[in-house]
Formats: sequence, structure tokens, C-alpha cells
Amino acid sequence: MTTPPLRIPQRVLLGPGPSDVPPRVLLAMAQPTIGHLDPVFLTLMDHIRVGLQKVFRTQNEMTLAISGTGSAGMETAFVNLVEPGDRVLVGVNGVFGGRMAEVARRCGAEVQTVDAAWGRTIDQQQMIDFIASFKPKVTAIVHAETSTGVHQPVDRLGAAAHEHGSLFLLDCVTSLGGVPVEIDGWNVDAAYSGTQKCLSCPPGLSPVTISPRAIEKLTARKTKVQSWYLDLTLLRQYWGQERFYHHTAPINMLYGLHEALAATLEEGLEARFARHRAAHELLARGLKSLGVDYVSEAGHHLPMLNAVHIPAGVEDVPARKRLLEDFGIEIGGGLGDFKGKAWRIGLMGSSASTRNVTLLLAALNAIVG
Amino acid sequence: MTTPPLRIPQRVLLGPGPSDVPPRVLLAMAQPTIGHLDPVFLTLMDHIRVGLQKVFRTQNEMTLAISGTGSAGMETAFVNLVEPGDRVLVGVNGVFGGRMAEVARRCGAEVQTVDAAWGRTIDQQQMIDFIASFKPKVTAIVHAETSTGVHQPVDRLGAAAHEHGSLFLLDCVTSLGGVPVEIDGWNVDAAYSGTQKCLSCPPGLSPVTISPRAIEKLTARKTKVQSWYLDLTLLRQYWGQERFYHHTAPINMLYGLHEALAATLEEGLEARFARHRAAHELLARGLKSLGVDYVSEAGHHLPMLNAVHIPAGVEDVPARKRLLEDFGIEIGGGLGDFKGKAWRIGLMGSSASTRNVTLLLAALNAIVG
Repeated sequence: MTTPPLRIPQRVLLGPGPSDVPPRVLLAMAQPTIGHLDPVFLTLMDHIRVGLQKVFRTQNEMTLAISGTGSAGMETAFVNLVEPGDRVLVGVNGVFGGRMAEVARRCGAEVQTVDAAWGRTIDQQQMIDFIASFKPKVTAIVHAETSTGVHQPVDRLGAAAHEHGSLFLLDCVTSLGGVPVEIDGWNVDAAYSGTQKCLSCPPGLSPVTISPRAIEKLTARKTKVQSWYLDLTLLRQYWGQERFYHHTAPINMLYGLHEALAATLEEGLEARFARHRAAHELLARGLKSLGVDYVSEAGHHLPMLNAVHIPAGVEDVPARKRLLEDFGIEIGGGLGDFKGKAWRIGLMGSSASTRNVTLLLAALNAIVG
Repeated sequence: MTTPPLRIPQRVLLGPGPSDVPPRVLLAMAQPTIGHLDPVFLTLMDHIRVGLQKVFRTQNEMTLAISGTGSAGMETAFVNLVEPGDRVLVGVNGVFGGRMAEVARRCGAEVQTVDAAWGRTIDQQQMIDFIASFKPKVTAIVHAETSTGVHQPVDRLGAAAHEHGSLFLLDCVTSLGGVPVEIDGWNVDAAYSGTQKCLSCPPGLSPVTISPRAIEKLTARKTKVQSWYLDLTLLRQYWGQERFYHHTAPINMLYGLHEALAATLEEGLEARFARHRAAHELLARGLKSLGVDYVSEAGHHLPMLNAVHIPAGVEDVPARKRLLEDFGIEIGGGLGDFKGKAWRIGLMGSSASTRNVTLLLAALNAIVG
């Protein structure tokens, strides 16, 4: 035997993603692989597009799953909509805003950031004032900052961006399926997400949606998209009517996404949002009685990502190790500025349940108390 | 019910990939998702690296699976090893050589190609002469050209490239696990493959290996890698000892790859190559008696990808449709110059069996005869 056998434990995933994947999604992924141009598979892709349109709340025809994780979705948005020399405005109050700025710079953009302290929201009016003065081609912000647990208000930014000739790009990696995301209602031109957060599908795909306004900019490009793999002008020929071969789609991952979307829509988006809120409120009350405080701004906590101060007198790594080994529970450590200072407790998708919150609070009580 | 239920048929996959996936690999993918920093998962990644090193026949420490399909592996190789203005030499005798040249151009490379007719091999000496005169920073060629079925001799190119200060980059998407691939023996500096060919894992990951010589070039770069997602200087910190978070790895896909590598190594590489050859020879004899000729050069047919002329009097699309609908068999149509002119019969990984060849020949006889 050259390779040790696979022995995967059953965890309770309460970290920043992946979240617990329902058995029906896991079993969907174990269906036989078929060809990426098989008529059965092409029909499945159509169903996935329709499902994603419903979850994103958009009519965008160009709505698809990128063959990579959420960061590939981020890169897809920037490499397609930014040309070298373009001005790009990015809101930064955590790791993922910073990553957007970095990705934009690697596309040759002239980047300006609107910064807020980690754990704080970015003021929409301040962002709008920067749009008016900097006149960016693309304005980008993170809806749910996974590194800080901040729920960013974004409803006014799209209209302001459009008024000044800018596209509006929204990172929905952690928000999609857990809190309302209104792509059309908020005038969003490009958004991306990940499958492993509130959709409760394994990681590996990035849902992306692109508005007709963004497609105009894409088709008017003077330069080629620097990434061949993520070039939407090529990808749309495969996801569209032409079904022109680009790359081999990750077939079984798409079975999983199909099933995860079905589960999400069967539950209903409003019911799903309510379940996330209820789990979050139960957790917040329990943490309060344990004396654990949030690092994120009051009134702007993400229900699916609870970033809290590590309780006084508790050592970060040993405590999380004990949670994992004794209770089978994963929570996340801090990222970036919050490394060693914060914990990130995820209640995403299937993980957002009364049972999980109850278990976690009891386990934390045993460790912290 | 908002989304139609998933109903996946059982096909016999004899196209250019994906190939038939063994049940043990499908079931591995249905194991519970765990965190991408879970100690169990980090150990799994180590096993995958060791398995890939054995299959690639390399000691390269930087051997990993990229979170995307084979084309993402191609892009990884070029964006990391090429800087704007670098000279790149690419052998082109089919779609995938052409794609390499295109990807290199999008990295800002000055590209020169050594061309051969579709279906012909590229002469190694001619390529070596070009290396000597053009003095490229990177020399690249496709080992198994999936669009033409040509098995390209490459054993002399690495040494010649090194002699002239060039790195040697090899596309092993279709060859890895089906015919000998000798990364260290052939002085290859960067190679990539896909999981859905002769490894018989679903598509979605790209095994990549990078030599110490290539890492030197990578660390000496004057410019940042244009892709953040595929930046090996960041990825190596996650796959290496640091385990530094970069992006969320596609957990369940990696379960599948782990199991596919285990199956490959249990069979043994030499036995696996012999099985591919035997299936190919059985097919070739059968096709000959049906009067079907290869489009690829005699003596250089790939065992796992048999590119043949569409039999006279047979209509391409209706015949392949009948194979799929009446017999459940997928074969591939022609690509690029060969569209409507050639069929591509894959015998990759688990699909390379006497049973499958026997079935296909009988089905072809019913259609062609």
C-alpha cells in the first residue's frame, strides 16, 4: 500500500468556511462523471445559471460558475473589467478589501483605497465623495468582510458609481445565501461568491454575475484579458448558446452546486436569511453571558461570521485545538491584523443551526469558564 | 420544486476527457468536507504531494495541485516563469500548443513558434536549433497533443534548453499516468497535467511540478506575477511548511485526487502504461479492419488519444449522437483544424479496458458498417 487510506473525520464546521455540507450535496458529487459537452450536462449548466440568478437576485444573462474558488472569482471580475492604467477605487477595512486592491494593481490599475479601521464599516458617503473626485472606472467593495465580521452597507454605491461613469463591483463571497444580496436592486455590475460559505457546497467554484453594462466595457476593451483561463469573452461562449469548448468544466463540483442551489431555493431565501439571523442571535446572547465581545462595529455584525475577541486568559491555538480534538468543532483564528487577537465563528449555510450554537456555547463554556 | 432533480446517466467515456471515474474515487469525494487548515487535511496534502512526485517521477519539492483545471495549470506555469518582454519558444502542432503561445503572449512574452502540420510531430533537432538561435527564456511543448493524438518525443529538449539558459516547460495534461513522463529524467523545469485524463479523477484540479531551477527564476523576478490566484510564491506558503492561508483549497476534489493517486500507484505505473498500450493496440487493429485510419503520424500515436479520420459516408454529429444515445458511449469530435474531419477516441485511465474497446468496436461496426 503506497498511499495511506483516506480517513476523514466528521467535523462541525463553525469557521470562516467551508461550512458543513449536507449529505444530499455530497452524494450529488459522487454521481458518475459525464462529458462536459454531454447534453445532460449542458442542461445542468442551464439549471445552475437559473439557480444562481435567483440567489443573486439578478436578470444578468452572464451568470455562471467560475472553475476555481472565490479568489478566482475576484480575479475574474478584475481581469475582465480593468485595463492597464484604469483607475480603480477599493474600500479596504480587512483582508479581502486589501486583496481586491492587490489584484487590481496586478491588472495594471491605478488604485486608490478608501480605508476604515478593521472591524468598522466604510462610510458610504465618503466612498461616494471619492467616486466623484477620483472618477474611477471601477468601484469595488466587500459586502461581508470575512476577516472582521463586518456587514457593509452598500445600497447607495451602485447608483453613485453609475452617475460618475464607474462600474460597481461587489464581493459577495461570504454574504450570498446568508443575508440579502440584491445585484439588480443595488446596481451591481460584477459580483462573485464562493460555494463553501452560505451555499454549503464544498469549495472549488465561484458563482459570478456580470451586468450588461459591464459586458459593454468588456467588449469595448482595447487590450486582451491578461488571464486566458478567466477570460469571460471566451467563457461566455461555453456557458452561452454556442457551447464552444474553452476548458473542461469541473463536472462533479457542478453536480454539487446544482444540488446546493436546489436545497437553498427549496428552503427559500427569506427563510434561510431568518435562520442565519436566529442562529447568530442565539450565539450573540450566549457569548455575551460568557463575557466574549465582538470585534466588529455594533449594529453591523454579520450573522454568518462572528468575529470576537479571544477571551481574556485563553490561549488562541491551544483553545482551538481543544475545540477540534475534544469536541470536533472547527472555529477560525484571526487573519491579518487580527491574528492571535480574534476568533471567527462561522454560522454559514447548513452550519447555522440551534444545535450547533448550543454545542459550541457548551464547549466554549468548558474551555473558557 | 424549483430546480429539476439531478439525473446523471452512466456513460462510457471514450472521449478526450473526462475519463471514467472509478467508484472508489467518486465515494472519496462524498466524504464530509473538513477545513482547509484542519490537521487531517494538511496531512492529506502531504500525501498528495508524495503521490504526485511518484507519478511525475520527480524529486521537486514544489509539486502540488492547482485549484483549477488543466488550463489553469498551463496558465500557472507561464504567469510564474515568464516576465513581460521575455522570449518564449513554443512548439505548435495543434490546439494546445497554440493555446500555450496565446497564454505566453498574454504574459507579455515575445513568442516564437516552431510549427508542424497537425498530426505530425515537431522535429526535436529543429526545436533545438531554434533554441540556439532565438535564445528563449522558456521553451515549451506539448507532450500529448489532445487535438491530434500525437505523442511528441521530448527527451532531448530539456538538456538543450538548459545549455542555452532556457527553462523547459512540458504540457503533460493527457500523458500523465498513461505513458512514461520523466520530469527529472528529461530535465523538465515546469510541468502541469489535469486530473480527468489518465488519472481518472473528475476534472477540477491541475497537478503541477516546478524544478529548483525554475524556482530560482521565480524568486529572481523583477515584476509581480500577474495572477494573484496562481502566484506560486504565495501558493508554496500554503502547500509548504508555513501552511499560510492563500485561498480555500477545493477539499473534496483533493479527496478524489488522493484516492485516484492511490489507485494509480497500487496498479503501478508500468502496469498502467502497459494497459493503455494494450487497449490502444486492440482498438487500432479493430479500426483497421473497419477501414478507419489515424490522422496522426505513424509510429507516434498516443495510446490514450486515438485521433482518426471520420469514416467515409458517415456524418460526424449524427453518428456521435447515436453512439451516445443508443450505446451510452461518448467519443470526441475534432477540434480546430480537425473539426468535422476527425474523431478523438480516448482510452484514458479507467476507460482503457478490453471491455470498452470491444464495446466501442461493436457499436462502430453497427453504425459504420
